[in-house]
Amino acid sequence: MADKKGFASDNNAGVHMRVLEAITAANTGHVLSYGEDEFTVRARKRFADIFGEETEVYFVYNGTAANVLGLKAATESFNSVICSEVAHINVDECGAPEKFTGCKLMPVPTRDGKITVDGIKAYMHGIGNQHHTQPRVISITQATEYGTVYTPEEISEIAGYAHQNGLVLQMDGARLANAAAGLRIGLKELTGDTGVDVLSFGGTKNGLMFGEAVVFFNRALARNFAFIRKQGMQLASKMRFIAVQFEALLTDELWLNNARHANKMARLLAAELEKIPAIKLTQQVEANAVFAVIPREVIPRLQEMYSFYVWDEEKNEVRLMTSFDTQEEEVMNFARLAREVINCLVPSSRSE
Amino acid sequence: MADKKGFASDNNAGVHMRVLEAITAANTGHVLSYGEDEFTVRARKRFADIFGEETEVYFVYNGTAANVLGLKAATESFNSVICSEVAHINVDECGAPEKFTGCKLMPVPTRDGKITVDGIKAYMHGIGNQHHTQPRVISITQATEYGTVYTPEEISEIAGYAHQNGLVLQMDGARLANAAAGLRIGLKELTGDTGVDVLSFGGTKNGLMFGEAVVFFNRALARNFAFIRKQGMQLASKMRFIAVQFEALLTDELWLNNARHANKMARLLAAELEKIPAIKLTQQVEANAVFAVIPREVIPRLQEMYSFYVWDEEKNEVRLMTSFDTQEEEVMNFARLAREVINCLVPSSRSE
Amino acid sequence: MADKKGFASDNNAGVHMRVLEAITAANTGHVLSYGEDEFTVRARKRFADIFGEETEVYFVYNGTAANVLGLKAATESFNSVICSEVAHINVDECGAPEKFTGCKLMPVPTRDGKITVDGIKAYMHGIGNQHHTQPRVISITQATEYGTVYTPEEISEIAGYAHQNGLVLQMDGARLANAAAGLRIGLKELTGDTGVDVLSFGGTKNGLMFGEAVVFFNRALARNFAFIRKQGMQLASKMRFIAVQFEALLTDELWLNNARHANKMARLLAAELEKIPAIKLTQQVEANAVFAVIPREVIPRLQEMYSFYVWDEEKNEVRLMTSFDTQEEEVMNFARLAREVINCLVPSSRSE
Amino acid sequence: MADKKGFASDNNAGVHMRVLEAITAANTGHVLSYGEDEFTVRARKRFADIFGEETEVYFVYNGTAANVLGLKAATESFNSVICSEVAHINVDECGAPEKFTGCKLMPVPTRDGKITVDGIKAYMHGIGNQHHTQPRVISITQATEYGTVYTPEEISEIAGYAHQNGLVLQMDGARLANAAAGLRIGLKELTGDTGVDVLSFGGTKNGLMFGEAVVFFNRALARNFAFIRKQGMQLASKMRFIAVQFEALLTDELWLNNARHANKMARLLAAELEKIPAIKLTQQVEANAVFAVIPREVIPRLQEMYSFYVWDEEKNEVRLMTSFDTQEEEVMNFARLAREVINCLVPSSRSE
Repeated sequence: MADKKGFASDNNAGVHMRVLEAITAANTGHVLSYGEDEFTVRARKRFADIFGEETEVYFVYNGTAANVLGLKAATESFNSVICSEVAHINVDECGAPEKFTGCKLMPVPTRDGKITVDGIKAYMHGIGNQHHTQPRVISITQATEYGTVYTPEEISEIAGYAHQNGLVLQMDGARLANAAAGLRIGLKELTGDTGVDVLSFGGTKNGLMFGEAVVFFNRALARNFAFIRKQGMQLASKMRFIAVQFEALLTDELWLNNARHANKMARLLAAELEKIPAIKLTQQVEANAVFAVIPREVIPRLQEMYSFYVWDEEKNEVRLMTSFDTQEEEVMNFARLAREVINCLVPSSRSE
Repeated sequence: MADKKGFASDNNAGVHMRVLEAITAANTGHVLSYGEDEFTVRARKRFADIFGEETEVYFVYNGTAANVLGLKAATESFNSVICSEVAHINVDECGAPEKFTGCKLMPVPTRDGKITVDGIKAYMHGIGNQHHTQPRVISITQATEYGTVYTPEEISEIAGYAHQNGLVLQMDGARLANAAAGLRIGLKELTGDTGVDVLSFGGTKNGLMFGEAVVFFNRALARNFAFIRKQGMQLASKMRFIAVQFEALLTDELWLNNARHANKMARLLAAELEKIPAIKLTQQVEANAVFAVIPREVIPRLQEMYSFYVWDEEKNEVRLMTSFDTQEEEVMNFARLAREVINCLVPSSRSE
Repeated sequence: MADKKGFASDNNAGVHMRVLEAITAANTGHVLSYGEDEFTVRARKRFADIFGEETEVYFVYNGTAANVLGLKAATESFNSVICSEVAHINVDECGAPEKFTGCKLMPVPTRDGKITVDGIKAYMHGIGNQHHTQPRVISITQATEYGTVYTPEEISEIAGYAHQNGLVLQMDGARLANAAAGLRIGLKELTGDTGVDVLSFGGTKNGLMFGEAVVFFNRALARNFAFIRKQGMQLASKMRFIAVQFEALLTDELWLNNARHANKMARLLAAELEKIPAIKLTQQVEANAVFAVIPREVIPRLQEMYSFYVWDEEKNEVRLMTSFDTQEEEVMNFARLAREVINCLVPSSRSE
Repeated sequence: MADKKGFASDNNAGVHMRVLEAITAANTGHVLSYGEDEFTVRARKRFADIFGEETEVYFVYNGTAANVLGLKAATESFNSVICSEVAHINVDECGAPEKFTGCKLMPVPTRDGKITVDGIKAYMHGIGNQHHTQPRVISITQATEYGTVYTPEEISEIAGYAHQNGLVLQMDGARLANAAAGLRIGLKELTGDTGVDVLSFGGTKNGLMFGEAVVFFNRALARNFAFIRKQGMQLASKMRFIAVQFEALLTDELWLNNARHANKMARLLAAELEKIPAIKLTQQVEANAVFAVIPREVIPRLQEMYSFYVWDEEKNEVRLMTSFDTQEEEVMNFARLAREVINCLVPSSRSE
């Protein structure tokens, strides 16, 4: 009953075989609920090994929750959160951050999904002025919604600015694995070591069935997180089944292999599409997304065979996501079909 | 790595084999995310078959969310929700209902977990008075937190009163299956047919890995539920993996067989404990819970071998929950151990 | 265009002449808005003189806001607030505390409007348990909604218990002046000196046009109050006109004289009513309220001439409030009328 | 104790004499509280006369509340509110709209404080998509934060677009009187007749002590407003003292005369400043505000004598507000001083 193949989202993929095996293996009678079981203890240990002993990790169900509850842990209701205008928290969470934290989001214009200290500074005024929300968090997405990636140096600069100004750096790492794979750098080096205070570490987009982790490098922020999670409706009763998925993901570098593969497929897709003169890539391919402008009349024909989203209707810009289970054949077939349809529908482009 | 056997909670159980098989079978490549896939369509169809064509069903991650989002769908922030003082929404959800809905909860005193129209009426004043929150929802738990069960007639009476007064009846059905099994009545007969407007239909406590369903009999309340669910951080990306669990649960009466077994084990446990003079049952055993007063010094000895919770420290009252995978041998062994420890520690009780 | 005389509420009174004069005197051209003017500085100085140099005071518009914002300053959303079941915050603020703070209110049963450490203890469980809201504030009303008064010793005991358990003591002092007058004790002795952390100091019920003060004895709680007040929609632009009202109230003991007079009228009313055998007082008269059971058929006849509220329909219990401008003649006339109507309608009662 | 003269804000002004007289006249013993008194009935009648019989009006304390509660009446928490990026609700209310409504604000870029249908359309996407907040309100400020004014035709166009798309038009009319005076048009013609659904009608900036009115042209939105106001901490107990202020304002066109005077002073100020070559006006003067770029070194010298705000530090742009009590002499003296200081500090500018 699988739908047509595609590049719609890494959320459309299924579950990695090793993750499913870990779930099955954990289905062994009764254990304590709500995270007091040994599976969860073991998974948290794995996080500590990778992100540092001084971190604290909490599992939640999904990425929206990881972001919103992480922000809640760092803010009071009169604060504001500075993020890119295309940030998932700003456009794709149906106002969940505002509803649950009471905070205002401050969108920084961006061309490539990344924000800079200069862009942030535009919102750093009215500090101490009772009429204005008080900036408290800078939120960045790694990899970004455009498939681009912050270098460790870029993150350090933002983190430094945040800390100098009494702010906290939150990272939406729904695709952190892809960023790390792209940069060939470790998870800790790309997060805690660069000054990230609280991280949403994504699992679902990288082969899990469900589950995200909120990782606190700044432990002071975690003080009340157990209550925030429960009041936020995100405390799983049969916690072991999130825990063992993450344990599998963090074992034998499954996270990295999955991400590497997705990234490789994205680069291949980009390379193939780049050969077609009528198609124009619009973003650097640094993780597992390809953004491309495709002739308008071609898009629906491709969508008959492959699922993917039009990102910008006006510009005919589409988003093509790859995932841990994207196959090389799929990529090549898609590129071939694109070429054929273009040749058929956009004759002028054949001149190459 | 399973913990010791026990009667702590039906949340401590694992996942029913057929549910896990359904998950595995659904892991077939890419499908649309967020519930637009065919697995979810099929599961919703199954709900319509059972609860009625005119119902609408939405899946969420857990029971707290099912309750809170269902209440949100029915209320405005100045409303109040009338429930039993021991209701899960009132004591076990860390204030999630108040935080997300803004509403006030009105706790009705209860001896057996059930509330009546008389108890409800105590809060039906100040209607139209701007100084007071306005009652809007009556919430009942079926089976109750005490393992007792409302008869269809009792629910109808409450529903009738609710509707006459412009209120809505919400049912926390985390253990609805156990109630239906206990009453030997269908799910629809026990909910929509009795006048329930919105139901939290529990899965996790009855053999699922995770997932609860919000079932709207009163479709007008569902109008904006997709947005409420997303803003409530409860929209699962890989929705199929909740959907197929419910499909399995609703196939070949798995829900009923699981619940029947748990109930049977509870009755057996109650019968065995009742034979021990020093133990006194405190609630009717109508679902899968046994409440009993046990001599104080005996409790810790039992807890060395079996996990369960002390419900009321002062009264030495314990709660023993059975589940779909409780084994008869476990029950008999527990009762035997209780008798032995009592004979050893409470000699006077031996005089029987 | 004044309505009929009465004992409905101290909110029905007008503005004390000296308060109105202060307002008029402050109407002198332009001054800085939002509390940075010298009138406000002067009024805050007056508060410091009376409540202690180390206190911090903020003006808001009304009593509901003073309470709710004071609670917000002390809580996080997963906290709970323990108060009497008849507390204004629990029954007369339309759920404003829940909506703005996210917290749950824990109502302690009470006969006379006062709560005790024993009553509070019933809610002091589940500490550190993520499923339960965490008690953070004890809120008491002084004078209570029943016109009774906590002694300084009673408050100290509650404060001591609060502080030993990491809680904060908030006082709803909408009628603090009446309590202090009744106890013949200073405002500071009755608040900060007994361990109150944050106080709503009422003005409107004691002769102001509008305006209440939030007084922080525990300055740490005030840290972000300017933002909380603004986000709570309670920052007055022309702040001077609240400030000078309070300055007048705190000058030459106007607050005390007003309260004393109201209390005296309440005692006179109680004394007169007590002489009527068919009337039974139900609460101690320790401030400016009289609660009395009056024969059912008599009440509407009295309400034709005097406005007052029936407190408990079933018991025929009425509440009679006096205020700074209640006249002795009014009290005597009311008592006389009560006697006459009773003699006429309840002949059996004449046997005295 | 008045501060230095100035152009800082119309909030710095005092209370108009006739308003204060009305307050004094209303101080006549006991009347019903919370708006059930005859003063309030009379004031509401006055609103009906002016804004239309079918309107409904509620009084609140301040402008932030009028806006926020009006928005709350029209929205659910998953909605969004489209407004100008410089809207008071977006920048000067410390996140009160987000906190109380849960909604997201969508800021439309603007040069002159006004927004257009084209600007609004940029946010009219994702309709029906569960991931995105759903646009529900368009909010405009009249006169704008830049002292410019929407014509009735401009409002009608926005209202038409709103209604065609199922949205509601809210107007922040903190300075509506100034806009109406500037346009020489009636209040109803400029609001209800142009399609405004709910209006915040400002009083404080136009000569009141405190108090704003929420006027519903779309009565369906008002259905629960009494509860929203109380839960929003904005129900005044001694309501008569807001009511009579508005009655005075709406009697003998006091509102119009006050606004006309303020506008006239703004035009005079603009005219005088325009004569100084080194000063450049940056906005049309259509109400009671003048925006001007003044040489940087001149500003602090002027601020020694007159209070006013620097609007944009980088551009040396200042905001000069006039009010009902601004005197011609003040305006002339300010302009003269500006000329002198400029001549002294900016010699090059003298060349005129």
